[in-house]
Amino acid sequence: MIIVMEPGAPEEQIQDVVERLEHYGFRIVLNRGDVMTVVAAIGDKRLVQTESIASMPGVRQILPIREPYKLAGRESQPHDTIIDLGHGVKLGTGYPLVVMAGPCSVEDNLEGLLKVARSVKNDGAQVLRGGAFKPRTSPYDFQGLEEKGLQYLAKAREETGLLVITEVMDSHDVDLVSNYADILQIGARNMQNFKLLKAVGKANKPVMLKRGPSANLREFLLAAEHILYQGNNDVILCERGIRSLDSNFTRNTLDLSAVPVIKKYSHLPIIVDPSHGTGQRYLVPPMAKAALASGADGLMIEVHHNPDKAYSDGAQSLTMDEFTTLMKEIKRLEEVLRPINAV
Amino acid sequence: MIIVMEPGAPEEQIQDVVERLEHYGFRIVLNRGDVMTVVAAIGDKRLVQTESIASMPGVRQILPIREPYKLAGRESQPHDTIIDLGHGVKLGTGYPLVVMAGPCSVEDNLEGLLKVARSVKNDGAQVLRGGAFKPRTSPYDFQGLEEKGLQYLAKAREETGLLVITEVMDSHDVDLVSNYADILQIGARNMQNFKLLKAVGKANKPVMLKRGPSANLREFLLAAEHILYQGNNDVILCERGIRSLDSNFTRNTLDLSAVPVIKKYSHLPIIVDPSHGTGQRYLVPPMAKAALASGADGLMIEVHHNPDKAYSDGAQSLTMDEFTTLMKEIKRLEEVLRPINAV
Amino acid sequence: MIIVMEPGAPEEQIQDVVERLEHYGFRIVLNRGDVMTVVAAIGDKRLVQTESIASMPGVRQILPIREPYKLAGRESQPHDTIIDLGHGVKLGTGYPLVVMAGPCSVEDNLEGLLKVARSVKNDGAQVLRGGAFKPRTSPYDFQGLEEKGLQYLAKAREETGLLVITEVMDSHDVDLVSNYADILQIGARNMQNFKLLKAVGKANKPVMLKRGPSANLREFLLAAEHILYQGNNDVILCERGIRSLDSNFTRNTLDLSAVPVIKKYSHLPIIVDPSHGTGQRYLVPPMAKAALASGADGLMIEVHHNPDKAYSDGAQSLTMDEFTTLMKEIKRLEEVLRPINAV
Amino acid sequence: MIIVMEPGAPEEQIQDVVERLEHYGFRIVLNRGDVMTVVAAIGDKRLVQTESIASMPGVRQILPIREPYKLAGRESQPHDTIIDLGHGVKLGTGYPLVVMAGPCSVEDNLEGLLKVARSVKNDGAQVLRGGAFKPRTSPYDFQGLEEKGLQYLAKAREETGLLVITEVMDSHDVDLVSNYADILQIGARNMQNFKLLKAVGKANKPVMLKRGPSANLREFLLAAEHILYQGNNDVILCERGIRSLDSNFTRNTLDLSAVPVIKKYSHLPIIVDPSHGTGQRYLVPPMAKAALASGADGLMIEVHHNPDKAYSDGAQSLTMDEFTTLMKEIKRLEEVLRPINAV
Repeated sequence: MIIVMEPGAPEEQIQDVVERLEHYGFRIVLNRGDVMTVVAAIGDKRLVQTESIASMPGVRQILPIREPYKLAGRESQPHDTIIDLGHGVKLGTGYPLVVMAGPCSVEDNLEGLLKVARSVKNDGAQVLRGGAFKPRTSPYDFQGLEEKGLQYLAKAREETGLLVITEVMDSHDVDLVSNYADILQIGARNMQNFKLLKAVGKANKPVMLKRGPSANLREFLLAAEHILYQGNNDVILCERGIRSLDSNFTRNTLDLSAVPVIKKYSHLPIIVDPSHGTGQRYLVPPMAKAALASGADGLMIEVHHNPDKAYSDGAQSLTMDEFTTLMKEIKRLEEVLRPINAV
Repeated sequence: MIIVMEPGAPEEQIQDVVERLEHYGFRIVLNRGDVMTVVAAIGDKRLVQTESIASMPGVRQILPIREPYKLAGRESQPHDTIIDLGHGVKLGTGYPLVVMAGPCSVEDNLEGLLKVARSVKNDGAQVLRGGAFKPRTSPYDFQGLEEKGLQYLAKAREETGLLVITEVMDSHDVDLVSNYADILQIGARNMQNFKLLKAVGKANKPVMLKRGPSANLREFLLAAEHILYQGNNDVILCERGIRSLDSNFTRNTLDLSAVPVIKKYSHLPIIVDPSHGTGQRYLVPPMAKAALASGADGLMIEVHHNPDKAYSDGAQSLTMDEFTTLMKEIKRLEEVLRPINAV
Repeated sequence: MIIVMEPGAPEEQIQDVVERLEHYGFRIVLNRGDVMTVVAAIGDKRLVQTESIASMPGVRQILPIREPYKLAGRESQPHDTIIDLGHGVKLGTGYPLVVMAGPCSVEDNLEGLLKVARSVKNDGAQVLRGGAFKPRTSPYDFQGLEEKGLQYLAKAREETGLLVITEVMDSHDVDLVSNYADILQIGARNMQNFKLLKAVGKANKPVMLKRGPSANLREFLLAAEHILYQGNNDVILCERGIRSLDSNFTRNTLDLSAVPVIKKYSHLPIIVDPSHGTGQRYLVPPMAKAALASGADGLMIEVHHNPDKAYSDGAQSLTMDEFTTLMKEIKRLEEVLRPINAV
Repeated sequence: MIIVMEPGAPEEQIQDVVERLEHYGFRIVLNRGDVMTVVAAIGDKRLVQTESIASMPGVRQILPIREPYKLAGRESQPHDTIIDLGHGVKLGTGYPLVVMAGPCSVEDNLEGLLKVARSVKNDGAQVLRGGAFKPRTSPYDFQGLEEKGLQYLAKAREETGLLVITEVMDSHDVDLVSNYADILQIGARNMQNFKLLKAVGKANKPVMLKRGPSANLREFLLAAEHILYQGNNDVILCERGIRSLDSNFTRNTLDLSAVPVIKKYSHLPIIVDPSHGTGQRYLVPPMAKAALASGADGLMIEVHHNPDKAYSDGAQSLTMDEFTTLMKEIKRLEEVLRPINAV
């Protein structure tokens, strides 16, 4: 439920309400607005008599949270979440587009990785992506360099100043990956791996959660809810294409309307991955621009120093030159869209 | 098959090849390039000995057409089709965005229709949309004003100078609708009504073909092929959303990657309908802008003078004011994207 | 709305109610039960004051019809529809399974057709299927023999005593096809060709309506409603597979749960087409048996005298021998299932 | 690759081939047929010169494995896998249908569980199902009794002699769950949790792998491949419905054609879960019978002593009486189908 405090209610009244609710086992989210404070209490409302809260000093009104995604939804938090990724980079409504770029997999070639990292940094990307633990449909495909890959990413960060995002696949690897990464990535196929969601919910790093290939938006927000519920508020959503009619022309169907829908129902930032979302290099630039126009807060794009020899997903990786061109277009587009979307 | 003529082959050699192929029952499409001429011959290649054509004077090379959509594909026509819609409006790559706007249904209120028409004309739309024959899932829903609706549309054209697009639902109504409309619309549910495709293929009006809700792009291009095959080359494709995971947040899933895919494999222009593609008013502006960024040649948008009282699709119709705002944003975006996409 | 008459209400009271409602423009469906009669009135209920009907002699109760498919649903007709196909064959709950078998297309080989017809008749099929008008994704595929094909079918009926079902694709061909066929088939791609539905709704032949490849069951029943609304009560539904995840192993996903769902919500009979539903010959027998176990009233199965040379759909056609084997299995299965399903 | 040995090749020749291949890092699967032995070698074929194997004594022929699912496919093992579940129960082609029944979740009511267990045992079920670890879309739903639930299941096994199947959700719980369960279940949402697949691939219990809601059959078989690759050959596949058009009438679309497709391409047994596959109690009996007719080796069915009060999935759980009736029907159907399918 939502407890709306009187405008100007003193801090001690707010604390009293919080303590009483915590005493009954509720999880509390505090939203301190300019005019009044709102307390969102998540838990079993049968545990407390609503009237006993309503009559506490400073309480103006009690409202139910009707949305199933209580913490991810706008009812408990009307304002947009802005996530501080480190190195001065902030992600969310009103902030510059955050671009995450790099190879699909971290490969056994540190020089290649550094080459890509320097190049995308120079083009304006803020985050380096690269998989060290790789979920692969077939056991006969490249499974990732694991910790060695994490070390390579850390070296690239040292050298370039880029932030690092990489995937964690198992609840017991969260600590290991957190030692190297600035942002933990949950892959599409693990969107409903609830033990893993719980584990990253307890980590002190931002988490980027990819939408599952057949997940509707309710399920997507509820997966985010599992993370938020553990106390980690820094959740970034990522649209990366859904399974749809056929796969003759595209690997997935990029569902860009998810961006404005999520913006309406949730305060969490959302980025788009046009590389996995299409699976085809020539489709990445137009869909990256379309994602920006739809209102996305960021982009995740695969870039490889030699896509034809990539260990994985070469067909959808941009060359460094293609990425340079795209980033120039994106910047010009951003300048026009910023004031439009601000209206 | 494709017959590539020698650079500078004289006209009479070209005509000889064309006549020989027509004699064997082939349908011919001529592409006269700056350097050389290419003859696309559609038909049963068992009917002719390829060698007998290859040895004709002026013939350089014979290539098979491997694509199933022989006329819609790039093999028989590498350059983009530009369609002259009338009133000086051209649709296709390199030309200004064509915007088709108006109510879902033509309702029994001529003044309302004129009001919308004047307003969207003033905002920069070039085409008025409105359904006189309405395909409705239930027989208990409003089925359209039929010929009276066509007359209303014609009056709005007279008064505003807008072109008119409206749907034709039955092969035997093609003549009637052609008397009033500038562009014939084939609705999504009729995308594979082959008798109707044949009939509009024989009409002398441009045809806008909507993608069926579960049609993949191969089926979409083959539906266009049915029209082209009858001799009507002025086919406009329209992406309007596909049936996908769920319908809690959106009516359909707008598949914007269809735009660059179609552009790669076909020379036909493609527009996007974000109104049916999302089913929600608040999603129309972001998805219209995203469609533009993805490379669409035009937009079809529902606008109503009083959406809450619309006979059909009120929830997805913009008000006239919302449309005015959107058109301003679109124009600024177009200015930036034109040079980008021209690169 | 539903007008429930008093038990034993005399015929003239029933007629008075019917006439009054028809006077106000309602369409009437009469259900004469053993105990009482129920009048279903379809139309705009704002046209009449409900109280004026409620107070007529013999009227016990007035109920709204809440289902969108007013005539196809169970509210207006609780008992199952049984359709008399002719030649003593009845289709519907409690009657023996009706099997429709024959080639996909009627080909230019009367002897081949007669061979298949004699064979399937001998195996116990009651209806011969075969397409004379063929809806084809590509204009370059075989489009059917048209009237000549209808004549071949009629000859096969004469010789074997089988009933004939064949597809009608255009509203203006309904009379022509009705001259030859015992059952009119509406193909999956025409499920929402509303002009065609209207036309067969006025024909005096039973209509078999195939489910569209992306139609949900509400849309399927509403398509049937368009036919029923024109006065033709003899509508047979046909599940033939929907478009789903991928098409590597099967052409469509046969949705057998549609059978018991339709049986619950509608009184119309439903049959299953495992040939189009799977697209693979080896899948036809197991899925035919599964369809029977799920409660289907009939089966439609493609059989060809030489599948490898079929003009269309050879990969999913059974040989005559395979069909003979399948029919033996089906009969044994039917014997066991009849008493089970009757419980 | 597949190494076909000469008929009657002595054991030492076979062992020499195996050792040579293992030396080069291949994983070996031996199929000892009545006439000859076939060695399937999984690994990177660039590591060995094929000729050097081909010339070894006793080797008749070397064939490539073209299927991506090398261990799950028929190329490396043509005969059907039969799994010994314990208590004398065998699962696979030719053996009696194995029925797994019980509540969705193990609830905090041992008596209720025992009641259901006794009842389904009496009806002929061989395995008790019940979730102790529950994957739940929302964090606010019941998450399972965890180890206490496992203990309850073990008690029910003791008392009734039923085998126990229960879900394991995290790679680090495999040992714990293995202490209590006879069969480890991998839920649909974890079908591509590759760390978990690896972990159960090393366990010495049979594993039942549920198909993911948007997984095509290639991905399903490759998920099984991850388990087989770790050395656990006792993998049972389970079709439980896929995400499809809409969810108004059913929770999922039960894809029964998956049964005969899997039977053709893989040697692994496959069972069907009509409870999750439909989500509606009234649909469970017809779809259970249809599954049997399609060739399934087993069924998994939710049964609850009081479905209206179930912690989860009450709407799709049968009452004990409904299950009793269904089992009687299933047995009669099985008698007829056994000889049919054996033909």
